[in-house]
Amino acid sequence: MEIIIAKNAGLCYGVRRALTIAKKTRRLKKGKVSTLGDLIHNPQVISDLRKGGISSVENPDELEEGTVIIRSHGVSPDVYKNISQKNLEIIDATCPIVKKIQKLVEKLAKEKMEIIIVGNKEHPEIKGLIGYSRGQGLIIENEIQAGRLPFKKKRAVLAQSTQDLFLFEKVVSCLIEKTEELRVYNTICHSTQTRQRATSELASQVQALFIVGGKASSNTNKLYQISKRILPNTHFIESAEQITPRMLRGAKKIGISGGASTPPEAIEEAVQKIKKTFEHQPQRESSVQCQR
Amino acid sequence: MEIIIAKNAGLCYGVRRALTIAKKTRRLKKGKVSTLGDLIHNPQVISDLRKGGISSVENPDELEEGTVIIRSHGVSPDVYKNISQKNLEIIDATCPIVKKIQKLVEKLAKEKMEIIIVGNKEHPEIKGLIGYSRGQGLIIENEIQAGRLPFKKKRAVLAQSTQDLFLFEKVVSCLIEKTEELRVYNTICHSTQTRQRATSELASQVQALFIVGGKASSNTNKLYQISKRILPNTHFIESAEQITPRMLRGAKKIGISGGASTPPEAIEEAVQKIKKTFEHQPQRESSVQCQR
Repeated sequence: MEIIIAKNAGLCYGVRRALTIAKKTRRLKKGKVSTLGDLIHNPQVISDLRKGGISSVENPDELEEGTVIIRSHGVSPDVYKNISQKNLEIIDATCPIVKKIQKLVEKLAKEKMEIIIVGNKEHPEIKGLIGYSRGQGLIIENEIQAGRLPFKKKRAVLAQSTQDLFLFEKVVSCLIEKTEELRVYNTICHSTQTRQRATSELASQVQALFIVGGKASSNTNKLYQISKRILPNTHFIESAEQITPRMLRGAKKIGISGGASTPPEAIEEAVQKIKKTFEHQPQRESSVQCQR
Repeated sequence: MEIIIAKNAGLCYGVRRALTIAKKTRRLKKGKVSTLGDLIHNPQVISDLRKGGISSVENPDELEEGTVIIRSHGVSPDVYKNISQKNLEIIDATCPIVKKIQKLVEKLAKEKMEIIIVGNKEHPEIKGLIGYSRGQGLIIENEIQAGRLPFKKKRAVLAQSTQDLFLFEKVVSCLIEKTEELRVYNTICHSTQTRQRATSELASQVQALFIVGGKASSNTNKLYQISKRILPNTHFIESAEQITPRMLRGAKKIGISGGASTPPEAIEEAVQKIKKTFEHQPQRESSVQCQR
């Protein structure tokens, strides 16, 4: 039995950076330290942070004192203005890649462009981005919605940094038929593109694949969809405990991948659980391989 | 038996316009009247034009006197300069849509953009367009060639006016993964898009489909590929004589389409040939329908 871990599975640079900033802030600051929204879409990590003295606040109105950390997804200018008028110290942990997309949306809005943002309208990154569009942004979640748009001489299209590249390409194809000049900005971060490609390739090599991560994580959900398209025996698990012998039946090669918010421990636990399950089976040899 | 003729099958506006200009020129001008290259990719029409006193010259060096007509595909600035230095009267019948694409390439070249032109490198329109790119143009014929391009921060992509929309979208999808800011200009003419869509829809409704037109016509070839993808029983015919009873066997609904250079007579002849073939069969009722 062989376990292969997909390239770039687990915590991305932006999320790792936000976690480091949060922990450093907790060490340096007295008083209350809160994050505006969960720092990461992973229940285990959130629980650990809470135990370490970093709470999570959903509504900016609940923030009154101490230090507030803006998570990697960023916030809209309105939210930023709102919290900056309070008696709070702001630590901005917005992912530099997301920051770059925010600036792009701001620039396109100044150029009076219609801006199509391909992403999930409930995702915090998208809620932040749309705020920079000065009313000229339009969130599109799939090619069906894109198909309903009217013809336009000029428009721009960009994506949530963790968008599914395949879906983005489908939306662009749809827009080509409805736009004379379409400016396409591939804002899907490099790490996401590599992770998606690696997961997709892995899905065609193994007999079972586990996507490890929080159900609330948009990019982990996308990995699941990508893998499921190729390998029906793909399972989305929040923790290693959910792995059953039945899921592994007949599989000689098993893949593991995880989203940008999946901590390395969660992936390691999945590896251990798979190994343990196999120990009770006749063929006991196993190896673990990480793609580079 | 029912014969359905695809919407926009046959002569497009640009080719009809060029034919009218050529005939008018012949009426008004004394001396030699030539077209630079075949006016239209259709052997029958070319033969008729020759009989009517309009010859076709492949090489500009062969032109010495009289009137020269630039065909709907247009020419490069170099060729234009070459013929304008001779003792010739020039009548420019370049399709206004192609003219617009030439101006776009010229504008993008001034902006120092890399310009990807999706088209057939031997096609006269493409040979003309590339001349406007000041060495910054690159002709791409398919997604495999696009896949070999290096990563670039910024580039533009446009298409031959009669390009297959599906192929253009595939090339764009490929370029998205290799470009940070991609400017997509959908320069496929409206009439071509409608013709391709109608042919593709027709292919899924009928049991046999005939693409009528000259084998040298690039856009007619594309119609054939589009239909063949959906309906294996698609036949590319240059004239009605090529229709055999075997091709029609078992077909209750028969489709006909033709490219931008297919004259209406060629389509009408195909209709008559199909009707005649069916007259020798037990079920003799037939109807002809033109999509609008």
